[in-house]
Formats: sequence, C-alpha cells, structure tokens
Amino acid sequence: MILRVDRLQTELPPPSDPDPVGAASVQELLGGKFGEMSTFMNYTYQSFNFRNRQGARPFYDLLASIAAEEFGHIELVSAAINTMLTGAAGGNGSPTTFPDSIKGTRNTQQFIAGGAGALVQDSMGKPWNGDYVFSSGDLIEDLTHNFFLETGARNNKLKVYEMVDHPAARALTGYLLVRGGVHQVAYARAIERLTGAELMKLFPSPRIPTDKIPECQPHIQRGEHLKLYRFSVEDFREIAAVFNGPHPETGEELQVAEEAQPSGAPAHDLPAQPALFAPSPEPEEIREIAARLREAAGLPKEPTGVVAGNGDGGVVQKVKNAVS
Amino acid sequence: MILRVDRLQTELPPPSDPDPVGAASVQELLGGKFGEMSTFMNYTYQSFNFRNRQGARPFYDLLASIAAEEFGHIELVSAAINTMLTGAAGGNGSPTTFPDSIKGTRNTQQFIAGGAGALVQDSMGKPWNGDYVFSSGDLIEDLTHNFFLETGARNNKLKVYEMVDHPAARALTGYLLVRGGVHQVAYARAIERLTGAELMKLFPSPRIPTDKIPECQPHIQRGEHLKLYRFSVEDFREIAAVFNGPHPETGEELQVAEEAQPSGAPAHDLPAQPALFAPSPEPEEIREIAARLREAAGLPKEPTGVVAGNGDGGVVQKVKNAVS
Amino acid sequence: MILRVDRLQTELPPPSDPDPVGAASVQELLGGKFGEMSTFMNYTYQSFNFRNRQGARPFYDLLASIAAEEFGHIELVSAAINTMLTGAAGGNGSPTTFPDSIKGTRNTQQFIAGGAGALVQDSMGKPWNGDYVFSSGDLIEDLTHNFFLETGARNNKLKVYEMVDHPAARALTGYLLVRGGVHQVAYARAIERLTGAELMKLFPSPRIPTDKIPECQPHIQRGEHLKLYRFSVEDFREIAAVFNGPHPETGEELQVAEEAQPSGAPAHDLPAQPALFAPSPEPEEIREIAARLREAAGLPKEPTGVVAGNGDGGVVQKVKNAVS
Amino acid sequence: MILRVDRLQTELPPPSDPDPVGAASVQELLGGKFGEMSTFMNYTYQSFNFRNRQGARPFYDLLASIAAEEFGHIELVSAAINTMLTGAAGGNGSPTTFPDSIKGTRNTQQFIAGGAGALVQDSMGKPWNGDYVFSSGDLIEDLTHNFFLETGARNNKLKVYEMVDHPAARALTGYLLVRGGVHQVAYARAIERLTGAELMKLFPSPRIPTDKIPECQPHIQRGEHLKLYRFSVEDFREIAAVFNGPHPETGEELQVAEEAQPSGAPAHDLPAQPALFAPSPEPEEIREIAARLREAAGLPKEPTGVVAGNGDGGVVQKVKNAVS
Amino acid sequence: MILRVDRLQTELPPPSDPDPVGAASVQELLGGKFGEMSTFMNYTYQSFNFRNRQGARPFYDLLASIAAEEFGHIELVSAAINTMLTGAAGGNGSPTTFPDSIKGTRNTQQFIAGGAGALVQDSMGKPWNGDYVFSSGDLIEDLTHNFFLETGARNNKLKVYEMVDHPAARALTGYLLVRGGVHQVAYARAIERLTGAELMKLFPSPRIPTDKIPECQPHIQRGEHLKLYRFSVEDFREIAAVFNGPHPETGEELQVAEEAQPSGAPAHDLPAQPALFAPSPEPEEIREIAARLREAAGLPKEPTGVVAGNGDGGVVQKVKNAVS
Amino acid sequence: MILRVDRLQTELPPPSDPDPVGAASVQELLGGKFGEMSTFMNYTYQSFNFRNRQGARPFYDLLASIAAEEFGHIELVSAAINTMLTGAAGGNGSPTTFPDSIKGTRNTQQFIAGGAGALVQDSMGKPWNGDYVFSSGDLIEDLTHNFFLETGARNNKLKVYEMVDHPAARALTGYLLVRGGVHQVAYARAIERLTGAELMKLFPSPRIPTDKIPECQPHIQRGEHLKLYRFSVEDFREIAAVFNGPHPETGEELQVAEEAQPSGAPAHDLPAQPALFAPSPEPEEIREIAARLREAAGLPKEPTGVVAGNGDGGVVQKVKNAVS
Repeated sequence: MILRVDRLQTELPPPSDPDPVGAASVQELLGGKFGEMSTFMNYTYQSFNFRNRQGARPFYDLLASIAAEEFGHIELVSAAINTMLTGAAGGNGSPTTFPDSIKGTRNTQQFIAGGAGALVQDSMGKPWNGDYVFSSGDLIEDLTHNFFLETGARNNKLKVYEMVDHPAARALTGYLLVRGGVHQVAYARAIERLTGAELMKLFPSPRIPTDKIPECQPHIQRGEHLKLYRFSVEDFREIAAVFNGPHPETGEELQVAEEAQPSGAPAHDLPAQPALFAPSPEPEEIREIAARLREAAGLPKEPTGVVAGNGDGGVVQKVKNAVS
Repeated sequence: MILRVDRLQTELPPPSDPDPVGAASVQELLGGKFGEMSTFMNYTYQSFNFRNRQGARPFYDLLASIAAEEFGHIELVSAAINTMLTGAAGGNGSPTTFPDSIKGTRNTQQFIAGGAGALVQDSMGKPWNGDYVFSSGDLIEDLTHNFFLETGARNNKLKVYEMVDHPAARALTGYLLVRGGVHQVAYARAIERLTGAELMKLFPSPRIPTDKIPECQPHIQRGEHLKLYRFSVEDFREIAAVFNGPHPETGEELQVAEEAQPSGAPAHDLPAQPALFAPSPEPEEIREIAARLREAAGLPKEPTGVVAGNGDGGVVQKVKNAVS
Repeated sequence: MILRVDRLQTELPPPSDPDPVGAASVQELLGGKFGEMSTFMNYTYQSFNFRNRQGARPFYDLLASIAAEEFGHIELVSAAINTMLTGAAGGNGSPTTFPDSIKGTRNTQQFIAGGAGALVQDSMGKPWNGDYVFSSGDLIEDLTHNFFLETGARNNKLKVYEMVDHPAARALTGYLLVRGGVHQVAYARAIERLTGAELMKLFPSPRIPTDKIPECQPHIQRGEHLKLYRFSVEDFREIAAVFNGPHPETGEELQVAEEAQPSGAPAHDLPAQPALFAPSPEPEEIREIAARLREAAGLPKEPTGVVAGNGDGGVVQKVKNAVS
Repeated sequence: MILRVDRLQTELPPPSDPDPVGAASVQELLGGKFGEMSTFMNYTYQSFNFRNRQGARPFYDLLASIAAEEFGHIELVSAAINTMLTGAAGGNGSPTTFPDSIKGTRNTQQFIAGGAGALVQDSMGKPWNGDYVFSSGDLIEDLTHNFFLETGARNNKLKVYEMVDHPAARALTGYLLVRGGVHQVAYARAIERLTGAELMKLFPSPRIPTDKIPECQPHIQRGEHLKLYRFSVEDFREIAAVFNGPHPETGEELQVAEEAQPSGAPAHDLPAQPALFAPSPEPEEIREIAARLREAAGLPKEPTGVVAGNGDGGVVQKVKNAVS
Repeated sequence: MILRVDRLQTELPPPSDPDPVGAASVQELLGGKFGEMSTFMNYTYQSFNFRNRQGARPFYDLLASIAAEEFGHIELVSAAINTMLTGAAGGNGSPTTFPDSIKGTRNTQQFIAGGAGALVQDSMGKPWNGDYVFSSGDLIEDLTHNFFLETGARNNKLKVYEMVDHPAARALTGYLLVRGGVHQVAYARAIERLTGAELMKLFPSPRIPTDKIPECQPHIQRGEHLKLYRFSVEDFREIAAVFNGPHPETGEELQVAEEAQPSGAPAHDLPAQPALFAPSPEPEEIREIAARLREAAGLPKEPTGVVAGNGDGGVVQKVKNAVS
Repeated sequence: MILRVDRLQTELPPPSDPDPVGAASVQELLGGKFGEMSTFMNYTYQSFNFRNRQGARPFYDLLASIAAEEFGHIELVSAAINTMLTGAAGGNGSPTTFPDSIKGTRNTQQFIAGGAGALVQDSMGKPWNGDYVFSSGDLIEDLTHNFFLETGARNNKLKVYEMVDHPAARALTGYLLVRGGVHQVAYARAIERLTGAELMKLFPSPRIPTDKIPECQPHIQRGEHLKLYRFSVEDFREIAAVFNGPHPETGEELQVAEEAQPSGAPAHDLPAQPALFAPSPEPEEIREIAARLREAAGLPKEPTGVVAGNGDGGVVQKVKNAVS
C-alpha cells in the first residue's frame, strides 16, 4: 500500500500564458506508450507479480521503489498540463463563448470532458491502455524491457522538450530527463549484475548528453542524476545492492539517498475556471460550504493544506538563470 | 508523491489449489470498467486536476486520500490473482508441456504473456484504458460519478464473489466489499454536504447488506466499515469535515482513523514458477547472485524484506470460522 | 420494433457559413462517451434487457420511451454536423483541390471517409463503442447510472455550446439542454420513487440554470422542459406513474404529453457536394434515374418526401430574436 | 424521429434450458462487425447523411426504412440472448455461489457486468464500435457496401445457426436469414437501377438457398422473403420505385407491404434473476412500489403492457413442426 | 515467402517544401480502414487461408499476386509521407526548439514517436488494426469484399488527392489510382467468372474516370491501367485465366505483364534529421562506423545500395508537364 | 517491392486431429504484441522510414532483409493454425450443426468470421494493431527495441510450445525458435557494432538454450541457427558487415547464406470445409469453373501450382525421430 505526500517531486512555475496546443503535446508524456503512466504501471505490476521475492530481494526492491517514484511523475506531468491550460478558456462567467484560440484546439476533450484538465491520453487523444504493461515474470526479460522503455521515454521527453517551450513544460522535461536517466542506468546496471553483459556504453541513448539541456542543470547540480530514493520509510533497503558503481556518463559514484524521498515542493493552487465549472461555475459557494464544514468538524479556520506561494525564486528561477 | 509500505492492506490466504478459471474472472475486479484500476485512477486524476484546492480543501483531501487507498486495492487484487495461478502450470522444469487443465484456460495471456501473473485486463481480456477515467473538474459532478462508480464496483464485487469460490478470491471480495462500501458512503455524504440532497436511503446498493456476506464479517467486527484512513503521514486532515454522521445502514458514527493506514499484513512470497521462467527457469541462480550482491553492498546476509509466514491463523482463519 | 417519422424533433437553421472546426467539436455530442449515441444505446439496451417487466412496468415504460426519444437526438446532432459541413469542401466539380480552410481540418475523415458527413466518433476522432453501454439489470443501479450519464451529458452540451457558436450548433445545444434536463429529472424522480432518497437538490447539475441559455428560451416557453413524450402510439402509458410532481428548478408540475411525440420540423434537404461525390459527382444523373423509376412505379411525378422550406421564420427565428 | 412499438418482429420461444455458451456465440449477431448493430447503424447514418434527398428520394426512402427494420433486429437478438441466459445463474437468493456451469462461461461479463443480459459486444467480447459504420455519401458506393455487408451478415447468421442449436437461437437465425435476404436483394436491385450492372446471379451468397433451412420455412410460407415494409406510418413511399421485379432465387415478384410493419409478437416477460439483482435481489419489493405508483397516478390496477402468453402455439410451434 | 526488391514501384519526387499537415492526411492511405495496409493484409491473409488451392488455382493466384503488389503500396505511401515530412522539424542540431509550423501539427506522433516518419495509423491518429481484415474463406464473398474494398479505397485516394497538393502526394495518388483501378477490375471480373453476374457497368466507381486526373496520365500512357503483374518469378501463372477481356472503361484488352514486376525506381535517400535523432543526432558517426564495418567485411568501399539521383527528369517531370 | 515465392520457409505436417483450442492459443504468435505480425511490421516500417540509408547501409540492409524473412513467418503461423483447424467443424454438408467440440471453442471467430482460418488477432481475440510498431528513426534505439522484441517473442514461442502439443504447433515453434534466435543475435551484434556495449552474455534469454528443444534439433543440424539470408536476389549485400563473429551460445561463426532464401517446402493444399463455405459449400463447382477458365486461357489442363505431397518423410519426420 502507499502513503501520499501532498507535494510535487520538484517545483513547477505558476500559470503564465496559457498554451493549450503545447498542453496537447505534453499529454504524450502522460498517456503515451512511453509516457509516465507506462513507466508507473509497468514497474508497479512487475513488483506486484514478482515471484520469489526473498530470493531476488535486491531486484524486487529496485522495481518497487522506482515504481513509487513514477507516481510522482504522473502527478508532475498532470500539474504541468493543468498549469498550461489555466486561463485558456477565458475568465468570464458561464455559459460563455470560448476564445477563438481554443475553438480548434488540438485536444478538445481537455475542455469538453475536463475543466482545463489533464486526460489519460496521449498527444493524439488515444487513451492509455493496459496493453502497454509488460510483465513477463522473467526477471532478466522484464529488466530488458524496462531499459528499452526508459530509452523510448527519454526520446519522447527530448522531443516534447523540443516541441513545447512553455516554461512549465520545460521545467517538467528538464526534471524528468534527469530522473528518467537515473532509472535507465539502474535497469542497465541490474542487467549487468544478473548476466555480466556490459551495457554502459549504450549511454546516453538517444545520444544526447543530459547536461546539454539547460533545464536539467539545476537538478544535476543537486546530484539528482546520481541518486535513487527508496520512496519508503521502512522498505526497499536492498536497492543498494544493485544501484552502485560509476555513472556511465560522468564516472561519479551512484548512490542511494539517505532521505526516503526528495523534499520536492508544494503544488500551486491552480485557480478555478468558472467558464468550465471547475470546481463550479460559482466557486465561492463551495468555499463557504467548506469553511462551514471545517468549523463544524472542529478543524482550523484556515485550510490546513500547503500550496505554493507566489513564485519564491526556487528551482524555476534557477532554471531561468541557467538558461539565460 | 507517494511512499510505499510493503504490506497488503489485509491478509490473504497462501496458495492452495490453483484456480486459473477463477483467476480469469477476478481480472474484472482489476482491469474492468468497474475494477480497482478504475477507482484508483479516477480519484487520482480528480485529485491531480483539482482546482481551487484551498477553497475546497475538505473535498480535495477526501479524493486524494481515497485515491491512495485504491493503490492498495490494485495490489490486493493482483496478489489474489497471482495466488490463484500459483501452481497451475505445473512444477516441472522448462520447456515442458503444460497440464491439460490450462491448455484451454480462459485467459491464456496470464501464462503466455505473464508468468502466472495478473494482467491489466478485465475478465474478457480487454485492457483497461484511460477512457474509464472521469475527471470533469466540476466537483459535484465528479462526486456524482464516484458514487455511481462505487455502486457499479460493488455490483461487480458481489458478482465475482458469487462466481469464484477460491479462498483467495473470497478473502479478497470480502475485504473489498467492506472498504468499497465506505467509499460509497463517503461520496454520498460529500454530495449531501455540497447540495443538501439526501442520498442515504440509496444504501445498500445493490440492495444486499454487506453483513450478509460471511467473508465481510471479520472486517465489520473490526469496524472497518466505518473508518476512513488518511493514507498520509501529514496531509489530508480535512476529510473529517466531510466524513462524519451516521452510517446509512447501521446508524453507527463514521470516523476518521487515527492511524495513517491499516496495519495490514505482509504478502506471501509466492513461489517461483520455473516452467514459466518466473523469475527464471533456474531461480536458484538468481538467489545466489542476489546473496553475492547483498554481501558486496554490506547488507545483512538474509533478505531484509518481510513476507508472510506459514498461515498464522489471522484474518483468513477468522473468515473461515465465520463461514463454517 | 420502431416506426420512423421522417421529421426532426426540432427545427434547425439551414446551411450558412461552413464551420468544419466547429463540426469536429460537435462530434463529441454524437459519438463521445456522453454523446447521444450513449444515451440512445444505454436506455435502449436497458429496455431490451429489462427483466420482470410487468412487475416493474412504470420503470420499463420510462426507459423504453426515453430511449425512443434519443434516436431523435442522434438524428439531430447528425443534421447539425451535416449542416455545418455543407459547402466546406467548395462547390467545384471533382476531382478538385479543396480550399485551404479544410486542408488541416481537425476531423479529416468527415471529408475523406464521408461526404461532409457525420461520423460515429467523438471530437478526437475516437469511435463510439459498446463499452459505453451500462446495463446491469439492477434497476436502481441502472437509474443511478442514467442520472449520472445525463449529468455528464449536460456538462458536455454546455461546453460544446461554449466552444461552437455556429447557428446550427447553438440551435442544437439549446434544444438538447432542455430535453436532456427533462431526462435528468425523470431518472432522479424514478430513483426517489424506488428508494425514498431525495435528489431534487442536485438540480441543476452542473450548477447553471437552463433558462440562462438564450437558445433554450423558445423551448422553455413551449413547456418542453416539463414534458415527457411516450414516443409510441399505443405503449408506455405508465410513465405517468413515475414522471410527476414538481420540477426541481421551477416548481411547475411535470407532465406526460398527450401527443405521442413532438411535431418537430422537416429536415433541410442538404445540397449535394459534388466535390465529395455526395451523393455523386454528377447528382443530376441520379435525379433523372429517380424520376424515371418513380414514374415506372406509378408514383407521383414530384418527390413525395417533405423537406424544410426556405427559412420560414420558425423556432430558429425565435431563437435569434430571443438572443438579440 | 421514431415511435416505438412494444412488440418483437417475430415470435421467439420462451426460456427453456439455459445455454450460456450459445448465448456468448449469438453475441456475434449483435455486436460483431457483421451483426445487427452494424446493419442498424450503417443504414441509419447513411440516411442521416443523405444529401440531395429529394433528387434521390427512392433511394433515401429505401435506406431509411431498412434502417428502421434493423432496430427490430437488435431487439430480437437481445431477446434471444436474454432468453438463453435465463436461469443460468441459478434461482437461489443472493449472494450465492453460481453453478459450476457458468464459472468458466465464455462471456463472463453477461453475468458480472449484466444480469444475464445481452452486451454490445461480439462473440469474443470485443465491443461494437463506430468504425464499423460506412457512410461515404456516395450513393452507389454506400449501396455496394450494403450489399457486401448483408452478404457477410448472411454468412455469420448461417454460421451461428450451425454453431448454436438452442431453440431461441434457431428461431432467431431462421427469421433473420429470411429478412436479411430481402435486404440483400434490395441493395442489389438498387445498384442495378442506378448503374445497369446485373447482380442477380450473385444470389444466394453464400451459395446456400434460404429454403434449405427448416427454421426459415414458416417465414417463407408467409411471403416474408419477398416483402419490404416501410416501417413508417406516413413516409418512405418511394421504396416501391426500387424494390420491384423478380426475386433472384424464386422468380416471384418483390412487393412493398401494405401494412407499415409486421404484426410481430409480444415479448416474453423474462423472469427476474435475483442472484444477479435483475431487476433486484428482491423483485417483489419493486412490484409493490410499482403497484402503488400506478394507483397514485390513476392508472389501471394491472400492468398495461402486453407480454407473451404461455406458448400459444404460434410461429414457434410451426417452426418445430417444420423441423420435425 | 518473399524476396525483396529494393526499389519503389514508381518514381516519387525528392523532398521539397515540407508539408506536415498534408502528411497527416496521407496517413489515411496507409493505416486507414481503406488504406494500403488494409488491401495488403486482406489479400495476404485470404491467400494464406485459401483452401482447396489446386481446385481454385486461378483465383488463388489472383489473390496472392495482388497481395504481393500491395506491399509495394505500403512502401510507396510511407515514402511519400517521409518525403513530405523531411525538413519540417528544422535542420538545426539537437536539442533544439522546433519551428512554430509543427508545434500544433495534426499528427504530433510523426515527430514525437517517430523521426519525421510514417506511422501505422490513419489520418486521425488511430492505429490500423486486424479487425480490418476480412477473410471468410468463402471465395465469392471474399471477392465481393475485395471489390468493395477497392471501391472504398478509390474514394479515399480521390479525396486525399483533393485534400493534399504536395507533389509527392499527387505523384502517389496518381499512381495508386491507376493500380487500384486495375485491382478493382480484377476482382469484378473474378466475380463474373464465378457467378455470371455482370459488374462492368459499375465502373468507374466513384463515377470519376481515372483519365480525368492529370497525375494518372503518364501511367495510363504506359498501359499500367491494363496490366496485372505476377509479382513472382515462378508462380501465379494462372491469373491469366481470370484477368482478361475488355477493360470496362476503355474497352482495351486486359493483359498479364510479361515481366514479373514493374521496373519501378530507386527510392530517394532521405536526408538525416538530426533534430529528431534520425538516424542519430550525429549521423556522421554512424557513417564512419558503417564504413569501417564494410571494410572489415571485405565489401566495396562505397555503399552498394542504389538510391535515386538528383531529379533525373523521370516520371515526375512528365507528370508536371502533363499537369501544366 | 516484393516478389512472392509460393513456398513455406519450412515444412509443416499435414492436417491430423483438429485442435481448435490449441489453434486459439497459437494466434498469440500471429497477432499478439510479440507475434510475427509485430516482428514483420516493425522491421518493415523501420526500413521504410530509414533515413540516410547510404550512410548507414549495413544496418538498413539488416533491417530490410530480416523484415522480408518475417513475411514468411506470418505465412507459417497462419498455415499452422489452418492445419490445426482443418476438420474441426465436421465434414458434413451445409447448413449443418457443428460438433459439440467447437460449440464453446475459445476462438469462435475462427469459425464464424472465417472458414476455419487464421485471424489477425492474439490468443484472447484482440486484433493486432499499429500501435505495436516502434519506429523512432533513431537507429540505436530501434535496434534496442528489436532486441527486446525478439526476446519477448522468444518467451512467447516457448510458452506456446509448452501450451500446445499438436504436431503442427510443435513443428512451427521449433522452427521459429531457431530463426528468432538468429534475429535476436543479429540485433544484439548490431548494437555492439554501433556502441561497443557487449551484449552477448544476455544469451539465451529467456535462459533456456534452444538446443534443449527437440523440435529445434533438425534446424540446428542444418545450421539454420547461424545463418542470415538476404531474402533478395540483388540487394542487401551489406548485412555481412554486421552479422559476423561467434554465436554467443555455441561459439560457431555466424554467416550470410549464399542462397537468397531457404528452399523451404510447398504448403499442403488444405482441404475444403464445405460446412464453413470454404471456399464454397460446393467446392466441386469452383473446380469446374477453374478448369474451364484455365482451358480458355490456354493454360495447362492441370493446376500449375505446387503443393505438398503425402507426407514424404521430410523435416517433420526428422523432428518426430528426434523427439522419440
């Protein structure tokens, strides 16, 4: 089972100019064959279906903990899409007439089915499906798949980086490229440990060093390209048995983080979109009900949740500095 | 993001007689339109896409925490399926000839694509897909959907209960019926809080009281039909503002658990299936490699993970007693 | 079985400026998960699969008659799409080169697969499929679903209203919002009758009163928001046992129409599109053959079918007046 | 729009021994590529999308009226499936354990998703989808398609006839083969009228004369193999301009029926299946509510709907006689 | 089995201005229901599944040889798409920012999943699937299908001709219309031979003579509209028994080509797209490796493959002349 | 383009006892995610989309020639399925009643849609689709995919070997395991050549040496595990630059065959199935027409095609000997 930590794994910029066309493309990183739903679900089901766990514990721990990290990735891609869609439908009351800019938008369902929201689809509007999950039960084979999957995912992230230049998309792809790179190394190393085959010369694949991407720099500087987290308070200690040795590109030593997970950052509280009834055509009414319920339940007067402040010059600012 | 706790939310019996026909039916509860993938992903994406979180915090917290519980449900259904498939392909070496009993098995891909493993499919072999996720952004509407989804899910669980009598399937459905019932109440109560409509007379739906199911009894006796967990160490405290008042069937008071999550139980370490290469045709070889790696990494000699013992007379036994 | 009445349930404006981008969005109301194919097929199959009809006759009659109305809705959405596509491919002979305006049109198949025609797809080009049909056989549950389906459908209609401002689309959504609202009430009332739960405070959902939409006004003025038709000459008389009491928004009394169906209006005879071979690159040739065949069969010299005249100032005009 | 007549187009036998395996196969005639959903939806959308209706009226009328007949076919196939499934889940209360005979049934969703009910799927459990609809707008091409579709449908009906010998399935296929044959002739004749090509030597296709099928005999004896109905009170009179001349197999003259539709037969009131909650685990409760509502609404004390009596020796008996 | 000839069946122009919007539409001719994947796979599987081949040899030979030609068609459509996409992503190094012109391109996956490459999808991004294959085993019925399929395919080709005016698309559709026309005749003739039905008056269907298309002219002048190739060195000699008699439009005699296949033309060596990593971000590196490997294997210093020169005034030029 | 050689790549046994349950499973090797449609289409489209062919010629040649071999594999799997289905529907005339043994057969569409014929589906009846094709354009990545795909395919072949023991299935899997192994080596070697990574220790994967399978022995004895064919008369000579060095399991030298393709064996002329109308309910009639047409065209009196004789003790016999 899981415990949820209500923070994003990294900071994203607040909404700025909406970019619905870009948001339609970013969907590929969520619901595409090589999107984060695929990485999340592949490793999750491989961990569920893992037989002889005690006998192969370091490998089970590796799959289980990377799976947990991937939940944070579907969360992050969704947050980026939602950020990019904020404001696209206009701020007027409802029913209104949408701005011309979204009348022929590539992904109409982000507005018709959703409230300027992420969908479980790829960039062509095709739903993610369970056929994208590979779980053969054969450990070497599952790892071979995972190495390939991360390679395809890295390709897709690089392409979306090139296709979408909205700040939220770039902050997203910058982070995911670094973390995806770690997983790619982890699976290659696991194969090496099991078979003796030497895969490190396959890096980077595609043949573009991560440090050429400006938006990756802040994360590299914090050593995020070397670290695997256990994403568990108590479990998965044996990843250290697999994830070690030199990084194939930099030669630095791979390491298991001491902390269970990255500290991350609170999400922005994305504003209501009344024209889309999200969360209501009249959000103020819900706010009042919530306050009343909170009071009746003896909870604090102010909401207890933590959301991001007004651009406190965190990672996003550092990314911007690094780029310019 | 999430932290993973390497335990099941409830105890399942160890493998006994394999039941591949039953396991094919149980897939409906995993990858069917009303299976746990659907509940997990619906609430997860609704929480990701939630706008104006601070203003509607109690409702955000409700969605986010129930979403987290549902991860434990896909884990549990998978564990049940894997348990039921254990031994079905025979214990001989590989390549072998499978027993006649699975040559015409309903779900051939559990064996051909997997290693006697769960698939992200329904009981007809159709993959789960992202189209099953409803996330309109309109809070009342999302809750209306969720109440309906839990109703449909309850129907499916009852039907699978009737269709499959393998002990693992019955332990599974007994637990899920109780917990699904709690979610059904939670969403109905949330709608009441937001609109004033009174929905409690809709319970139970389908019109079969949970306590008529023997396998639900042990969980009811522990009060699991009244409790919502936050599934978070720090967050989602405001569910208490929504989830309160009398239970529609028993009149008992609904409550938020003090502990973050149920203590649950460790999973059984399901045995290797060499005929299916899970995790290898020669699992012993992997065990040796793992031991070597563990030693080299300075980890304990024995695996650090915790798995279930040999039938320690826990919930499963109580269920059996209650039934007989 | 059915008898067909060759009229639309309401008047639509004749073709004006083509709007292929808008027509691609309107597809959501035809083949989307919450489109009219879904309402039509859900209620149709629920009526086919209804067990114990005599014992639950008022509810069977309700499902069966609303199902029949929905056929008129798929007809109406198709007519709107076809109207909006008329002229988009240009009027020249064939083979020609299409105007630039449709070279990158969102739904290319409306022109490549069809002759500027409606498709059984949603707004992203995904075909409608039978998985969208829910028919559990459990009456309360089916009605719960239907209430939810109509809620989702109302959301989609409002969104398409906002996204597409072509006169045909607005006339369409104005009418469908009124009639969908009636069905939403009918299902909620049916649940109330069966369970005692009080759902009327859920209206309107989404929380936008229908009478705020100008294009709904003419229909409201004719009382179409209060009336259920039997859509049968002889059958389904018992809907009166369920569909009664006050309308949740206006307090007016719900009623069963005396006439079997609305009088509606003849469809426009949409002009041939020779560039798309619809019905032929040389329609005149077909006209001559038809005349010859009609004569040979002893039929009247002129076509016997009834089609709409040249804008006779009907509902459409009234809508326009109401809006301006 | 349509009016519904609450009768089946032909008589089906009442439930006898359940045949869930056969019912899974009969689904092919409902939701398969060549099933009745396909014929119904193809002709329906072709009639919706028909341009230049006045100029090509006889052909529009032909498509529109055959489309209407096909609604009766999806109703009939559903009724046959529901008949065959009646009793399969056992008659005990609920929750129960299903009989072994359906634990590994081919279509589990008929029981898990439905209440022993028809699904919008084919015989492999794949949902029908809108991609099966062909509507090019080109009249000759649409008719070419329809002739092919009826040919494929005839093949499928013959195969299901061979595969399933349950009396309901045989009564169904016997009727559908006769009526499908009429449609096949109608489309071929329409192509002849438009182009001059001579297609009649293509009959029968597949090369099995309909009159070799015993279950077709009663319908042939009533001349159902020669007749087209308008399925409309007022419209579609011009089918007579196309549908005439000799029948390709018998040489008899084709004719347009004087009555709007076949008189058909009332459906059997299929009994409740409490183990499947259809329409409820306690159907009696619904019956009482219905009686109360009927009374309150001033309706007759007894249900007003007409359902089939106790085997009144109609067509079914004649089929039996013809076969034996 | 097959032998591959590394040439295209006809000449295509070299890359010129990129046309990603057009390339998205041309996908319909590759992966659409009526695209070349469908013709290729239908005839291929019909030939694989053909029973009683010796007894029906002329028909088996017909299907098998046309199937072989269709491989060349999927190759040709892919080449046209790849040509149209060349240069669209810009020529800069990688990672870059794509030009605005493709940020909202209709088919994002041509760039994100591919390297400016063809996909096995239709023009809406829906993957081709095996459901499009009809192989009933009944010879007359399969041929009826094939005649219909070629009719639908001709419609689609004409529509894409109208929708896309890029030179590569026009050269493609010009050629395919001529060859598809031959197949349409072949299947109609085969039906005539088997049944005696006379189908030739169905030509052309759609009712647009091929010779009205300027881009068809060069192929017609070379007699390509009359000729069937065996596409085999030794086999399929009996197509001559079916494919003969007058062409339905021109009256010229149909003929079986003496040569096994058309001479065709070498493909252009489409340039690398480093921004898309196709075949690498640094293609020069691969070139050097290839040269080294070639040398080590004792192969010639220069690549042995044949690719098209620099616009040698072949068919393309003739097409241009014919058009202007 | 291609030329077809009307022979199978290896000999299959003639029909014996039908095995429809096994044939349903063998479908996984045809239309499954890891079936031969996938290998065929992946390499084919990778070769179509290959940019900078001259610069990377040895790799283009490798992909193009292996793609060509895979056509022979879809042919072979289809032949095996058709062989296994022969006789299953009984030999009686038509319309008949099928034997009980296929009334609940796993794949009903092999009989209803086909004439005891192969479908483009997997073992669960899900159609193959274009989403299974990976063609990134990045050469190293495509090869990484292909190595993984062959690994997954090898797993599936081993599993189907274990699940189905019909002689045709065993002859099929024995051959495919040997040839798939060659492709797996070829792609691994290509990656080594491009990157320097050493992959040979990954063999065999799954960890079962091919020579443990008796049905592989005859092919190994003929050296088929070491050889790559060009499958072209003139082209693809540069595969020799990549495919060389020692075989990872045996150490023997890899080699490029001198002959263009294996000599293979003629297919059996599978008998008509009149109950399924394949190729007709009265095949004799077709035979007579064929003879007449052959004569009229001046062709030899006897069919010119070559089909397998009556079990001439070829490879099949050798396999049997090796096994026993």
